[in-house]
Amino acid sequence: MSADKRTGRERGEEWWQTGIIEMRPGVIRLRGYEIQDLIGRVSFPAMIWLMLRGDLPGDDQAALLGIALGAAVDHGPQAPSIAIARMAATCGVGINNAMASAINVLGDVHGGAGEQALSFYGDIAAAMDGGASLAEAVSARLDRIFAEEKDYVPGLGHRFHPIDPRAPRLIELTRDFAGRGVVSGRFADIAEAIEAEVATRKGKTIPLNIDGATAVIYGELGFPPPLTRGLFVLSRSVGILAHAWEQSQESDRNKGPLPKEWLWAYSGTPARPFPGDSD
Amino acid sequence: MSADKRTGRERGEEWWQTGIIEMRPGVIRLRGYEIQDLIGRVSFPAMIWLMLRGDLPGDDQAALLGIALGAAVDHGPQAPSIAIARMAATCGVGINNAMASAINVLGDVHGGAGEQALSFYGDIAAAMDGGASLAEAVSARLDRIFAEEKDYVPGLGHRFHPIDPRAPRLIELTRDFAGRGVVSGRFADIAEAIEAEVATRKGKTIPLNIDGATAVIYGELGFPPPLTRGLFVLSRSVGILAHAWEQSQESDRNKGPLPKEWLWAYSGTPARPFPGDSD
Amino acid sequence: MSADKRTGRERGEEWWQTGIIEMRPGVIRLRGYEIQDLIGRVSFPAMIWLMLRGDLPGDDQAALLGIALGAAVDHGPQAPSIAIARMAATCGVGINNAMASAINVLGDVHGGAGEQALSFYGDIAAAMDGGASLAEAVSARLDRIFAEEKDYVPGLGHRFHPIDPRAPRLIELTRDFAGRGVVSGRFADIAEAIEAEVATRKGKTIPLNIDGATAVIYGELGFPPPLTRGLFVLSRSVGILAHAWEQSQESDRNKGPLPKEWLWAYSGTPARPFPGDSD
Amino acid sequence: MSADKRTGRERGEEWWQTGIIEMRPGVIRLRGYEIQDLIGRVSFPAMIWLMLRGDLPGDDQAALLGIALGAAVDHGPQAPSIAIARMAATCGVGINNAMASAINVLGDVHGGAGEQALSFYGDIAAAMDGGASLAEAVSARLDRIFAEEKDYVPGLGHRFHPIDPRAPRLIELTRDFAGRGVVSGRFADIAEAIEAEVATRKGKTIPLNIDGATAVIYGELGFPPPLTRGLFVLSRSVGILAHAWEQSQESDRNKGPLPKEWLWAYSGTPARPFPGDSD
Repeated sequence: MSADKRTGRERGEEWWQTGIIEMRPGVIRLRGYEIQDLIGRVSFPAMIWLMLRGDLPGDDQAALLGIALGAAVDHGPQAPSIAIARMAATCGVGINNAMASAINVLGDVHGGAGEQALSFYGDIAAAMDGGASLAEAVSARLDRIFAEEKDYVPGLGHRFHPIDPRAPRLIELTRDFAGRGVVSGRFADIAEAIEAEVATRKGKTIPLNIDGATAVIYGELGFPPPLTRGLFVLSRSVGILAHAWEQSQESDRNKGPLPKEWLWAYSGTPARPFPGDSD
Repeated sequence: MSADKRTGRERGEEWWQTGIIEMRPGVIRLRGYEIQDLIGRVSFPAMIWLMLRGDLPGDDQAALLGIALGAAVDHGPQAPSIAIARMAATCGVGINNAMASAINVLGDVHGGAGEQALSFYGDIAAAMDGGASLAEAVSARLDRIFAEEKDYVPGLGHRFHPIDPRAPRLIELTRDFAGRGVVSGRFADIAEAIEAEVATRKGKTIPLNIDGATAVIYGELGFPPPLTRGLFVLSRSVGILAHAWEQSQESDRNKGPLPKEWLWAYSGTPARPFPGDSD
Repeated sequence: MSADKRTGRERGEEWWQTGIIEMRPGVIRLRGYEIQDLIGRVSFPAMIWLMLRGDLPGDDQAALLGIALGAAVDHGPQAPSIAIARMAATCGVGINNAMASAINVLGDVHGGAGEQALSFYGDIAAAMDGGASLAEAVSARLDRIFAEEKDYVPGLGHRFHPIDPRAPRLIELTRDFAGRGVVSGRFADIAEAIEAEVATRKGKTIPLNIDGATAVIYGELGFPPPLTRGLFVLSRSVGILAHAWEQSQESDRNKGPLPKEWLWAYSGTPARPFPGDSD
Repeated sequence: MSADKRTGRERGEEWWQTGIIEMRPGVIRLRGYEIQDLIGRVSFPAMIWLMLRGDLPGDDQAALLGIALGAAVDHGPQAPSIAIARMAATCGVGINNAMASAINVLGDVHGGAGEQALSFYGDIAAAMDGGASLAEAVSARLDRIFAEEKDYVPGLGHRFHPIDPRAPRLIELTRDFAGRGVVSGRFADIAEAIEAEVATRKGKTIPLNIDGATAVIYGELGFPPPLTRGLFVLSRSVGILAHAWEQSQESDRNKGPLPKEWLWAYSGTPARPFPGDSD
């Protein structure tokens, strides 16, 4: 329709156009499906897939997505997001507000490792599509990251866990699903080849972490890297809610990071008089 | 342990105690279960249940939870939360930030109707536990709300949908699960009795809405009312992510609420000179 | 204008009407004043007043507002808002995101005490308007709060400071401004009468705190109680920004609430096998 | 102090060290000054400066900071931040939550232009420090940005205002302050040289905008570019609060971006049956 001929209302409604949801009174369609046809027939992970991708997944694809989502729900209150959820819950705000303050910090450093890992795998996959062998592609990409003097490889290593118990289990499951033809196994191959090559170069294994392992699954399922950040938010939101809820059952008010009888160390300018005042 | 004998570290670690997650290097346990025992064996809704409730649900319970979570994922960009997610996505912030700004508005008015409905049902259930019949309990509770001159009954009616297509489907499924003994059906009875009694009093049916219908399910499954707000956040987060993602694929920058060639109407003080300046 | 005759664009523009700002290409007016007439001629607190109230304050009124805003900028990183700002700054999000997560927790408990104090004072002022003496009005209001078995009086007492050094200074300044006729001093009278009557009843002085003292100033200046929450946000945002900025100059990543070599105490279900697995 | 000898409490308190604020019971010091010495003696902009920079500004420096902060408080509800504040205010959340959702979108695109402009000016200043003339430095930096095929120069141009009325007034004031020796005028020179050189190259003037003009002032005052984002947040928070407050006085609930009787255009997959269902 030409812009010239649109009414103001049409122009306004076009401003907010979307391909996700269609509504009329009594009608809600998601990606073309009547909502009442979806309810009770697709799992929650399948609904997530449909909303993000536009088409329904197979049952096994949905199951694998659910596995990745379930694996990263929590890593305890030393994670800033979880601590923030708990602190917020003591400040007199709604549970959604506590969740928002927490989700808000799942940024490049706290939530972005999976995205970086999947981009890294994707570079290797692209090199393989261009004719390189897995070993060549991995080696070339690692040459590049080490040349940048980065001291870490996305998806490998954990400051706390010598072996993150989630990662080998997720890879094992990915192999199972690949064995049944649900996914190709290509990203699992890439991740394991990276891990092996890094071990050879460094003389010690730096094992795959949760971000690297979930990135394998999201890559196998065809999610683009930036969307994996959003999937991580959906996943970690579960732990954020659980902690906000647990905290809200207690009587603390204005919970600070340290026990309330403690303070903090002051490292700034010593006490001084206001300019012009005598000491 | 007496506070007197704790070391500072013990006191600090106690400050952040939780019953949700236990960690040691190489070990992550959620509610007592090794994470690697859970991954691949429990569905995503079952993981949500475990995190929030402390014990694993039965498969049917988890399925019913997933149904309620899947039903409320989106209601389109006229909902403030969805519009905010889309606008935020054009402002140069991360997808988690866009989600946080949106989730943050799922407050008493935008996200709280389910909580209010479940509290309302719970009052009726409590009266029945005290010996009242369903009809008596519903009638007494409605007497009370109408005496407060509230003009709406929690869980009934929708400003847009004459019949919300999600609600009858959710009640139908709840009845199915009750028929199989998964839930009692008590909250479905209560909701339907409310709907019928209101129809009698008002002379027209004001049908159950999505908040009333999901409240039925959350009540059947034993979730306390305040937690249903958090479940709604998990559910609507899916639509919020889908819309933020769709918007981020487009080139808009600083998307305003109206088409960019439009403005807003000014209703304030007419133009005036600064005090003391001549006109 | 009748709705029937409005064009769609007019209806859209009316949907976003405001009395705060008027714009045309090359023209920005705030509350009727040309922006270029305001810039350089009104102080920042005066601009805040104009935006919130619709008219320009006198210079002394603006100065007193600035005093209250400046007094509450920070209370250190044991305050959840400040801790959250610092934690967020280590998570790879923008400084505005760190500020948002922090401001978001300035709720009823963390930021709302000033609003409650001003409402409390306002009840007393209303009783005086109805003919009660100051002593009668204070006594009656305190009777009511103690009858509710509240264990605190809004605006009095501090868990950390025996005397909050900000409060007496703010009251002293309020008296100065009242002496010069800028404000009436009525809210200072009310706050001091409350403090005195509580001391008589409890046998010890529970001194005015920062929330009580800023509420006095906001009340003297005619701000309604709910808006004082917003003023507190503007004030504390300064400390939030300062701490986020200081933290961002350091190399911490994912700063948790406790030193990184510490954990948290687990208080939940002991380790248990997955249902059906042998121990 | 060696880590080995610290008690746990000392280690915890060191974890949260800061040079901004020192507290003991009855004592609050900001940057070394007793809070009661600051209250009533420094303006609100001076308090902002002290908190961010560590030392008190001169009165003229504080006044110029206040001018920049006051200039950018609002640009109306077509700005996503302002629209979000108003929408949030109708959703049943606190005024601080409405502010947080809004501030949260002041990201690289919506709030970052000033930071980019100041970085751009800083590159030119650095070239001048290295011996280049103003004209050479500007020309070289513009060569570089045009070589990158960027289609805009930071700080110039506005999609709505042919001339942004705030910018010339801010530059005029900067010149006044430079004339009195408060600042050097160097960044004003740089901004005007950029504007002139771009006009020569493009054959038309693309005038300085508000971001470019406030960046001049922040640069003159010695603020680093990333901190100017934070200053913009403090400034725009005033408009965000004013709009949230104005909206909260009205009766709207769940205010959407378009008039409530409108919808949005659906551009996705046409209605389709659930897989396996007959049409």
